[in-house]
Amino acid sequence: MRKKIVTPRKFVKPPYSLLIEKKRDGSEFTEDEIRFLVDSVLDQEIPDYQLASLLMSIFFVGMSAQETAIFAEEMMLSGEVIDLTAIARPKIEKYSTGGVGDKTTLVLCPLAAACGVVMPNINGSDEEFLISTRDKLSAIPGMKTSMSMERFVSQLQDVGCAIVGQPDDIAPVDAILYNLRQKTGTIPSIPLITGSVLSRKLAAGAESLVVDVKWGNGSFIKDVEQAKVLARSITRVGRSMKRRCVALVTDMNQPLGDTVGTSLELLEAVQLLKGEGPDDLKELVLKLGMEIVRLSGVAGSTLSAKQTVQRHLEDGSALQKFREMIQAQGGNPAFIDDPSLLPKAKHVRKLPAPKRGYVHTINAGMIARGVQILATDSKGKIDPAVGVSEIKKVGTQMKQGEPLIMIHYNDEERLEPALDYLRSAFRLAPKRPTPPDLVVERVA
Amino acid sequence: MRKKIVTPRKFVKPPYSLLIEKKRDGSEFTEDEIRFLVDSVLDQEIPDYQLASLLMSIFFVGMSAQETAIFAEEMMLSGEVIDLTAIARPKIEKYSTGGVGDKTTLVLCPLAAACGVVMPNINGSDEEFLISTRDKLSAIPGMKTSMSMERFVSQLQDVGCAIVGQPDDIAPVDAILYNLRQKTGTIPSIPLITGSVLSRKLAAGAESLVVDVKWGNGSFIKDVEQAKVLARSITRVGRSMKRRCVALVTDMNQPLGDTVGTSLELLEAVQLLKGEGPDDLKELVLKLGMEIVRLSGVAGSTLSAKQTVQRHLEDGSALQKFREMIQAQGGNPAFIDDPSLLPKAKHVRKLPAPKRGYVHTINAGMIARGVQILATDSKGKIDPAVGVSEIKKVGTQMKQGEPLIMIHYNDEERLEPALDYLRSAFRLAPKRPTPPDLVVERVA
Repeated sequence: MRKKIVTPRKFVKPPYSLLIEKKRDGSEFTEDEIRFLVDSVLDQEIPDYQLASLLMSIFFVGMSAQETAIFAEEMMLSGEVIDLTAIARPKIEKYSTGGVGDKTTLVLCPLAAACGVVMPNINGSDEEFLISTRDKLSAIPGMKTSMSMERFVSQLQDVGCAIVGQPDDIAPVDAILYNLRQKTGTIPSIPLITGSVLSRKLAAGAESLVVDVKWGNGSFIKDVEQAKVLARSITRVGRSMKRRCVALVTDMNQPLGDTVGTSLELLEAVQLLKGEGPDDLKELVLKLGMEIVRLSGVAGSTLSAKQTVQRHLEDGSALQKFREMIQAQGGNPAFIDDPSLLPKAKHVRKLPAPKRGYVHTINAGMIARGVQILATDSKGKIDPAVGVSEIKKVGTQMKQGEPLIMIHYNDEERLEPALDYLRSAFRLAPKRPTPPDLVVERVA
Repeated sequence: MRKKIVTPRKFVKPPYSLLIEKKRDGSEFTEDEIRFLVDSVLDQEIPDYQLASLLMSIFFVGMSAQETAIFAEEMMLSGEVIDLTAIARPKIEKYSTGGVGDKTTLVLCPLAAACGVVMPNINGSDEEFLISTRDKLSAIPGMKTSMSMERFVSQLQDVGCAIVGQPDDIAPVDAILYNLRQKTGTIPSIPLITGSVLSRKLAAGAESLVVDVKWGNGSFIKDVEQAKVLARSITRVGRSMKRRCVALVTDMNQPLGDTVGTSLELLEAVQLLKGEGPDDLKELVLKLGMEIVRLSGVAGSTLSAKQTVQRHLEDGSALQKFREMIQAQGGNPAFIDDPSLLPKAKHVRKLPAPKRGYVHTINAGMIARGVQILATDSKGKIDPAVGVSEIKKVGTQMKQGEPLIMIHYNDEERLEPALDYLRSAFRLAPKRPTPPDLVVERVA
């Protein structure tokens, strides 16, 4: 066969200011231009002030699906792309925009593994007021959330799941951009989020992606329509990158489950892995789990997907995978049977309902801030023992003085400022409110 | 009288990222916030990437007239404000957005002085492809365009006019922002330009301001409507800063006058100061001159303003002021009577019309680029001798081979690349085009 002769196109590097002006004035970047920009970030050649101004232009002007796909692809290729082809099972990644009390990743990774699906999870930076999955795992004695790529792949081969922080060599350009975006008001841009998620998630070697886009007062996306736009953007761009994607748009207008806090959430995850736990979380785990097994081809119909997921929760195999994952990452899973092995707060007190009525709304963001204040010492260190539990969800009928939440704390001094947030988070009303829909839209 | 007791308001400094998000999301800044931002720039406390992203937000969202006035005032107060109250005559500044072949500032300063109006001119940064007024003056042997504030004020007292570069201590925050804006695609923002112009011009101590906003292919404002918006913005914000302002929106779709180039333009300015020279420049000098004498109260009616300006051009008093200004700034004015004292190019050749027809359009920006290539050596040094003269203006009937321009050059090697631009600048057509209006709108 004759070799195809490729004439190299000549790309003349434009000044960064011209590229900024081009985007500012509403034009689309070419593939060469996007590659040049991503390379310039990687090589630290573009000054950060020009990058910041470019990112803000993208915030206002947007990027087309095609531009975003090239952007995601180039960011992915800026670092290592993990090769999981040696593993014969289906490989799926999960991404969530992040929410208060969300412990689904802790549950879904071992659950997927139990169902025969390999789930590599590279846990990216979360909103600053959220406790990341990685932070939660770090409360387990001995648990490591960083490892070499070789160990990561072999753990996926052996256990079927692994949760690690974003390694330096995975999508490094995304890490640089994310850091700058946090400081420059350019986080909530649909194409920038899309590019960031896909570059990071697909670098982990998955063939498909299940996405949970949360909207509400506990998400950085406050508007349900924006959440739908993001869900459509990720699935559309993901598809044009030849990956199958399903996204659910879900409610984040109250904390997920009954607990917020590192140890408390770990224990709630264990409950879920036993098929127990609060209804909202159980429903979300089931829905996302069903998407995972269907997208991977493990289950064909909706019914069989549901049965597959439920069986692996009920027969203990998901929990067993959780043990295996913890052990594989150096952690001691004994806390699963003996919760007292996890850090525990010295004091527990109730937040009493100020009057009778129904829990009408909960500001999940304020709950998160309250827990953050309880947990963070003056040096920025996080206390894994503290948090809130027994959260009365929207629609719960309350008598005056009954606990809205139980507050687990160690430091008396931080209690009062935290209470300001926790108190303000709840609004009681005489009439029973309509409970919010947990899943608002499914985008495939 | 009892002193008014002012309770100091408490302003809690917000994180810069919150201010960026506030503007990004369309809100107006408070006076405290603008002051905080300007102070943060002056003290170099805000990182340049956050400043860049804020500037791009302002580009897209804009600022209200009130915000812009506070912004201009605070930038002005970030440095020295020259006190000209000791000079009893009216004080007027002139600002032009800049244009190809524009030598009106060289003419209007001495002309105003001759009419009894004091004109301090702080010459800011111009578009990179334009020759600034300061550059032109620097071709005069011995001429200085920087001096102490004390000398500046005493020259204004003695001569009535002075042209200097922007001193470090005049509106330093504007200088920092301008520098960043050039690199971050945030030059063409109406409120940012307005704030920049007013902070700089009003720091020079003037009571009123005459503005020349140019639109067209030789201006950074390509759109006449944008030019009108800028003219209205500067006059409106200037008024709310208690300064009288008049703005003319003028044509920059061909070079002004017959020459582009340092020495060539100096000599054309001398012609104008004698009441001679090309029609378009004569008209613009007259119109802007009339605005100056009316705004300053030297002339009441339009007729008397016209007569005042014409008289001081014809009786030699404006030219005399030019001599005095040059002498006061250390320069030798002998070139006025003996042009051979200015640098002169070794070669002059014509650019022949490629066919017969009327000059239909001239791209002034391309003429400027051509001259820039002719004039700039490999070290970035500008040769004041080179340029183009005898520019055939729009509407001129040409025979094939007749000179469209005469090219003055020293370096053969740079001729050919310059010719590419100069040739492309002219478009000939069989029909006589409608000549453009020199003054499109007057905003007072």
